[in-house]
Amino acid sequence: MTVPRIGVTPGDPGGIGPEIVVKTLSRPSVLPPAAYVLFADPRIVAAEEKRLGLRLAAREWRPDGPREAGVYISHVPAPGWAAVHGRVSAENGEASFRFFETAADEARNGLLEAVVTAPISKAAWALAGHPFRGHTEYLEKFYPGAIMSFWSERLKIALFTHHRPLLEAVAAVRKDALVDFFMMLHRALGKTPGGPFTLLVAGLNPHAGEDGSLGREEDEEIRPAIDAARRGGVPITGPFPPDTVFLQALGKKEAVVVALTHDQGLIAFKLEAFATGVNVTLGLPFVRTSPDHGTAFDIAGKGVADPRSMEEALRLAAVFSVSGS
Amino acid sequence: MTVPRIGVTPGDPGGIGPEIVVKTLSRPSVLPPAAYVLFADPRIVAAEEKRLGLRLAAREWRPDGPREAGVYISHVPAPGWAAVHGRVSAENGEASFRFFETAADEARNGLLEAVVTAPISKAAWALAGHPFRGHTEYLEKFYPGAIMSFWSERLKIALFTHHRPLLEAVAAVRKDALVDFFMMLHRALGKTPGGPFTLLVAGLNPHAGEDGSLGREEDEEIRPAIDAARRGGVPITGPFPPDTVFLQALGKKEAVVVALTHDQGLIAFKLEAFATGVNVTLGLPFVRTSPDHGTAFDIAGKGVADPRSMEEALRLAAVFSVSGS
Repeated sequence: MTVPRIGVTPGDPGGIGPEIVVKTLSRPSVLPPAAYVLFADPRIVAAEEKRLGLRLAAREWRPDGPREAGVYISHVPAPGWAAVHGRVSAENGEASFRFFETAADEARNGLLEAVVTAPISKAAWALAGHPFRGHTEYLEKFYPGAIMSFWSERLKIALFTHHRPLLEAVAAVRKDALVDFFMMLHRALGKTPGGPFTLLVAGLNPHAGEDGSLGREEDEEIRPAIDAARRGGVPITGPFPPDTVFLQALGKKEAVVVALTHDQGLIAFKLEAFATGVNVTLGLPFVRTSPDHGTAFDIAGKGVADPRSMEEALRLAAVFSVSGS
Repeated sequence: MTVPRIGVTPGDPGGIGPEIVVKTLSRPSVLPPAAYVLFADPRIVAAEEKRLGLRLAAREWRPDGPREAGVYISHVPAPGWAAVHGRVSAENGEASFRFFETAADEARNGLLEAVVTAPISKAAWALAGHPFRGHTEYLEKFYPGAIMSFWSERLKIALFTHHRPLLEAVAAVRKDALVDFFMMLHRALGKTPGGPFTLLVAGLNPHAGEDGSLGREEDEEIRPAIDAARRGGVPITGPFPPDTVFLQALGKKEAVVVALTHDQGLIAFKLEAFATGVNVTLGLPFVRTSPDHGTAFDIAGKGVADPRSMEEALRLAAVFSVSGS
C-alpha cells in the first residue's frame, strides 16, 4: 500500500498552530498511516518541542525519496522569526504565508495528496502584504470552484456563501448560481469517502419563507434551483426552515446541509462541534482540511491548546486522500 | 401565601396540545404550587383523558372563588369540534382562538398572573378568519412592546426581529429601533426573576462585520446603539460574531443573547434546547410562556408527544408570576 503524502503547515508562529501541530505529530501512531510532511522553519519546530517537552521523530522530506508512513519536515525558512507569542506581526504573517504557499505549490504540482493547515492570522498576512482572508480564499485564486465545508461526527455542512456582508450574501441567492453550486458540490462529494451524500438545503427566510408570506427567495430562486439540480442527477431536498434543518441532519451519515450564509451554517456547526470540527475545502484536485478554530493568541505559548480539532483534521485528510488516490 | 393564577390553553385540538396539557396537568404535584386554569371545552379534555388513560382532578374555575393551588377548568365552548387529529380545520382554528382569547382577556383584566399556551395552527386560525401568525402577534395588538424570547437551562435569547423576511429584518437594523429594543428588553428583564441580566448582542454580518470589511451595520447602527443603551444604564456588550456569541453565553446565568434575526437565535436555541425550551413573551403586564414546538400534526393523537417543553413552560410561568406579583 502506498501511503498518502499529507502536507502540514503550522500556521502563525505566534498562535497556537505550532503547539497543536507538535502535539499531534509527536503521536503519529494514533493517526492513520501517512507521510505527514511539516512545512516549517526547523527552528520554530525545535522551540515548540522544547517548550512542550515533546519530540517529533521527523526525517527530512524529499519529494523523490521513498514514500513511507511517518513524520517528515520540509525546510521553509522564516527569516524574521522571533519566538514571541500572542500578537500580530508582519514577520509571522510572512512566515505562515510561505509555509502554506510552499505546501500548496507542492499539492498543486501533484506532490502531495492533501494539505492540513493550522490557523493563520489574516491581520498578519495583511501586514506582510498578502491580502487573503484565509487559506480558502488563497486557494480560490487557483480553483474558483473551491467550496468551504465543515465536518464533524454528527453534522456536515457546506457554505454557499461565506465571507461576505449579509446583504451581499442575500443578493447572491439566485437560481443559476445555486444550481452551479449544487452541481459542483455534488461532484466534489462524489470523490469523498462515506457517500453517497444527500444535500439538504436551508431556506433563506424564517420558516423557509412560509409559502411566500415571509420572503420570496425560496419560491423564486431556491426551489427552482433545487428542482433543476435534482433533474441533473443530484440527490437534493429542501428548502427547509433554517432553524430545524440542522437538527434534521444531525447524526445522519449521508446528510450534508447547504447553508446559504456563513452564520446559518457556523452558528449550528460551532454549537454542535466546537473543538472537534474540521474545515474541509472541497472542489480542489487535492484534499485540504484545517481545524475549525483560529490562532487563539490569548492562550498561545501556554501549552494549554486543545489539539483535538487538529487531530481530526489530520485524520480526515488521510482518510479522504486514500480514497481519492 | 397566595398562589399565582395561571391560564392554560390547549391550542389546536387537532394537534398535540391537548395531549401535552393533560399529561402535565394530571401531575400537578411535580409543578410549582399554583392555580392552573385550563380554558377549554370540557369535551376535548374528557376525550383526551380517556385516550391517554389519565385524569385531571379539575374543579370549575370561578375568578371570584377561593384561590387555592390545584387544577381548574374554565368552560369555553368549541361548537364545531370533532375529535379528528392531524389536519388543519376552521373549526379547530376557531376553538383554539377562543380558548386563547378568553384566557388573554382574563389576564389583560388582571384575573390571571400568567398564560401558558399550547401550540396553535396559524393556517387553522386563518381559515377561521383570525389572521394572526401566532399568540405573540395577537398580543402585540395590545402590547406593541411585546418581545419574543426563549429560555432554557443553559441559554436565553431575545429576538430583535422575528417573523419577517430576512431582507426586511436587515433593513430594520437601525440605531434608534435598536436602542428602543434594548431599553424595553432591559425593563422587562428587570421584572423577571434570576437577574440581574446582561445583554450580549449578536452582530448582523459574518465575524460581526470584521471592522467594516464584512459589512457596515455593526459600525454604523449596532455599536452606536449599544453605546447609547449602556449610557442609559443597560448592562450590555457586543456586537459579537453571530457564530460564537451563543457559545459565549452558554451556561451563563446572567447572559441574554440579543439575536437580530429569527434564525440567528432559533438555529442556536433549537440545537441547544429542543424539546425542553420555553418561548417567553416579555414586555406584557402578565407572564406568557409556551413550549418551543408546534402542533406536530404528524404525531397528534398517538399518545407519543413529549410534554417536557410544556412542563417547563408551566414551571417558568409559575416562577415568574410569583416574583412579579
